Amino acid sequence: MDILIKNVTLAGPGSEKSDADTIGIDRGRIAYVGKYEGKIRENGADKVIDGRNMIAMPGLANCHTHCAMTLFRNYANDLALEEWLFTKIFPVEQKLTYDDVYWGTMLGIAEMIKSGTTSFADMYLIMDAVAQAVSETGIRANLSVSPLRFETGNEMKVIDESDICVRYHRDWHNSSDGKIKVYLEVHSAYLFNEQQLKDAAMLAKQLNTGIQIHILETVTERRESIERYGMSSAEICHKCGIFDVPTIAAHCVHLSETDMEIFREKGVSIAHNPTSNLKLGSGIANVKELLDRNINVVIGTDGAASNNNLNMFEEMHIAALIHKGNLMDPRVMDAHTVLNMATASGYRALGFDDAGSIKEGMKADIILVNTDSVHMWPLNDPAAALVYSVQGSDVDTVIVEGKILMENRELKTIDEEKVKFEAKRCAERLLEGM
Amino acid sequence: MDILIKNVTLAGPGSEKSDADTIGIDRGRIAYVGKYEGKIRENGADKVIDGRNMIAMPGLANCHTHCAMTLFRNYANDLALEEWLFTKIFPVEQKLTYDDVYWGTMLGIAEMIKSGTTSFADMYLIMDAVAQAVSETGIRANLSVSPLRFETGNEMKVIDESDICVRYHRDWHNSSDGKIKVYLEVHSAYLFNEQQLKDAAMLAKQLNTGIQIHILETVTERRESIERYGMSSAEICHKCGIFDVPTIAAHCVHLSETDMEIFREKGVSIAHNPTSNLKLGSGIANVKELLDRNINVVIGTDGAASNNNLNMFEEMHIAALIHKGNLMDPRVMDAHTVLNMATASGYRALGFDDAGSIKEGMKADIILVNTDSVHMWPLNDPAAALVYSVQGSDVDTVIVEGKILMENRELKTIDEEKVKFEAKRCAERLLEGM
Repeated sequence: MDILIKNVTLAGPGSEKSDADTIGIDRGRIAYVGKYEGKIRENGADKVIDGRNMIAMPGLANCHTHCAMTLFRNYANDLALEEWLFTKIFPVEQKLTYDDVYWGTMLGIAEMIKSGTTSFADMYLIMDAVAQAVSETGIRANLSVSPLRFETGNEMKVIDESDICVRYHRDWHNSSDGKIKVYLEVHSAYLFNEQQLKDAAMLAKQLNTGIQIHILETVTERRESIERYGMSSAEICHKCGIFDVPTIAAHCVHLSETDMEIFREKGVSIAHNPTSNLKLGSGIANVKELLDRNINVVIGTDGAASNNNLNMFEEMHIAALIHKGNLMDPRVMDAHTVLNMATASGYRALGFDDAGSIKEGMKADIILVNTDSVHMWPLNDPAAALVYSVQGSDVDTVIVEGKILMENRELKTIDEEKVKFEAKRCAERLLEGM
Repeated sequence: MDILIKNVTLAGPGSEKSDADTIGIDRGRIAYVGKYEGKIRENGADKVIDGRNMIAMPGLANCHTHCAMTLFRNYANDLALEEWLFTKIFPVEQKLTYDDVYWGTMLGIAEMIKSGTTSFADMYLIMDAVAQAVSETGIRANLSVSPLRFETGNEMKVIDESDICVRYHRDWHNSSDGKIKVYLEVHSAYLFNEQQLKDAAMLAKQLNTGIQIHILETVTERRESIERYGMSSAEICHKCGIFDVPTIAAHCVHLSETDMEIFREKGVSIAHNPTSNLKLGSGIANVKELLDRNINVVIGTDGAASNNNLNMFEEMHIAALIHKGNLMDPRVMDAHTVLNMATASGYRALGFDDAGSIKEGMKADIILVNTDSVHMWPLNDPAAALVYSVQGSDVDTVIVEGKILMENRELKTIDEEKVKFEAKRCAERLLEGM
């Protein structure tokens, strides 16, 4: 046994075997879940973690982000969406280099590990820099690369980069001991046209991989899609074959009955980004309706420029609260549902089916959450405490595929001070004069 | 000079003098705000705090809570309001003793100080125990005591305790060096009848003090008030003279035009409790409309049983987000507005007009927030970082009226381990068999 966690309280997917107080990890997988007083005690272990006053739960899956946007954290706020995007974000993104994306991603990964995220979906520019950071830190990720590059300027220039996709997929898919998967990025049905959507779907099929996409984030997107295509973004994507491959559709705030039926039928995973949708004034997705239809709804933070952090505990909390208030029904989005969305369902959306719950045989992506603090006291109900009371800073230990990435809040694969120094340097250069 | 804070970044009310990097505190008040390179350097100080990588801001005012309900944290969740209140909360509250309320309040005060709250409004049972805890810990509070006690059982029994109010007011009002104020608690227009409302208003006038009250939290309250009184709870309270004294009205989710005009005209402060209103499915208050009418809207956490913590940074964050999403306008509730609601406006609501902003002459209720962490990095905009990125655990130092209540996250007036031990003991006894 490589790691033995004893005296621990279990919560979240896999914790149904409620008398378990011990988890054994061997060669990257969960080898034992049960009582300490079983055969496990005899086996010994290279490392024993005392989980007293800790909750063990599956690591969190952040199913939609643009990780390197940590560089633009709190740079532009409280603005109308178009002003924010076109006068603040796009201009500064034109200046990004490999170095910027690498350090911005490192900063985001550091933040995610420190708040309990063990896997994430990323969609950004210069994705080799992202893959390098993911691979060095040992986190799990589904990285998407776009077959088209859009250069904004006086007029939008579109550059075909499908050859880069093929090369990127060959270089990085299933790399980092299988912890990296490569999907295609199809930004949206408003940046892609019908032929480009078809070509992207075809390329994904050729590569035998999936797609990350933004769909129906705003009312404007819905209206303009109907003007342009005579149908919603979900419908045109469906028509072009996008959903014939595994798809993570982010946002999905403004869906019709038809759109929801398409997602259900095609098994599309929907990444709900409550903070970003609220902060940018996009609206409130009808998550209850989606869950009632058995659609795989998962949770994402979106980028730090529209959040403004990458804290999945905060995201779970807000997801659990807003739908109760919006629907005026305190019974919707109960703690167990939300924990499941942020872990097991999230892992499934990212294409990592053999992780995301604490069961024997699963990959060991586990976090330990400290409950020995006044704001978690008394504990009463561990699952509710994880959704309603916890802070990201309560995460004590993070394990991905049996490897400890953080212990006692100390990052093991990241030099935190160096990352902060370099990220600040990059941000200052990028934002100078903006 | 008692305390000198140097090398610090200012944010929130009073920080308009933007080149200041130094705060001097003398005899409980802010004696200097400006550059270190002024006359201040010559004066010396008993204690110098290096504020490098810190933001100094006014302490947070939690304008509606039931502090001792920390004992019931995460005890009952995801239930319909009536089931939660009548089958879970009221029965366990019948068992409360002085000891329970004292330790529950100590736990809540510990949590509030650790997340930056320096003053709060409390409304609960056995208020002598609350005043004892407040006075021992050195936090600032507006405590309300009810002229009526309601014993729930087979039928509701109402006991007149206005003599207790008079005694409590005499014992505690302006005690703790003026850091405690005593208001009357008028629970609501649904627990009080018309005569009782009139009597309470009269008693408040006799004592020359104010009132804390719950108003129009739910649609049910609105409907039943109209059935019973022929008018809304706000209107019947107005008619009975409640608003003739300074009033903090909690919730105010379901207001008519008439109700809003009453609040504006009478200068009522409204305590917005976004988390509780969401979690209990009460709805989303129209805070933008209230602010547009120049009503003093402030922020509260409500009790830990319906939140489930007492973290005002989290409450600011949710207040900043939900109205943008609900109104689909990212420009409402900007960071400066929200910071102001949670500090200067909050202090005004609590009746402490000479604190709540960082200005010379004001009482020194100041917190220092650590920005040297990956989730606050790069800082870019301090005010936005405080609303959108910060965690309660980033609070490093808490000062109330010039006295340090926490430094380097260590509580100075509370034995945290003892409080946890005793609170757990109380909670276990109360919740046994529930």
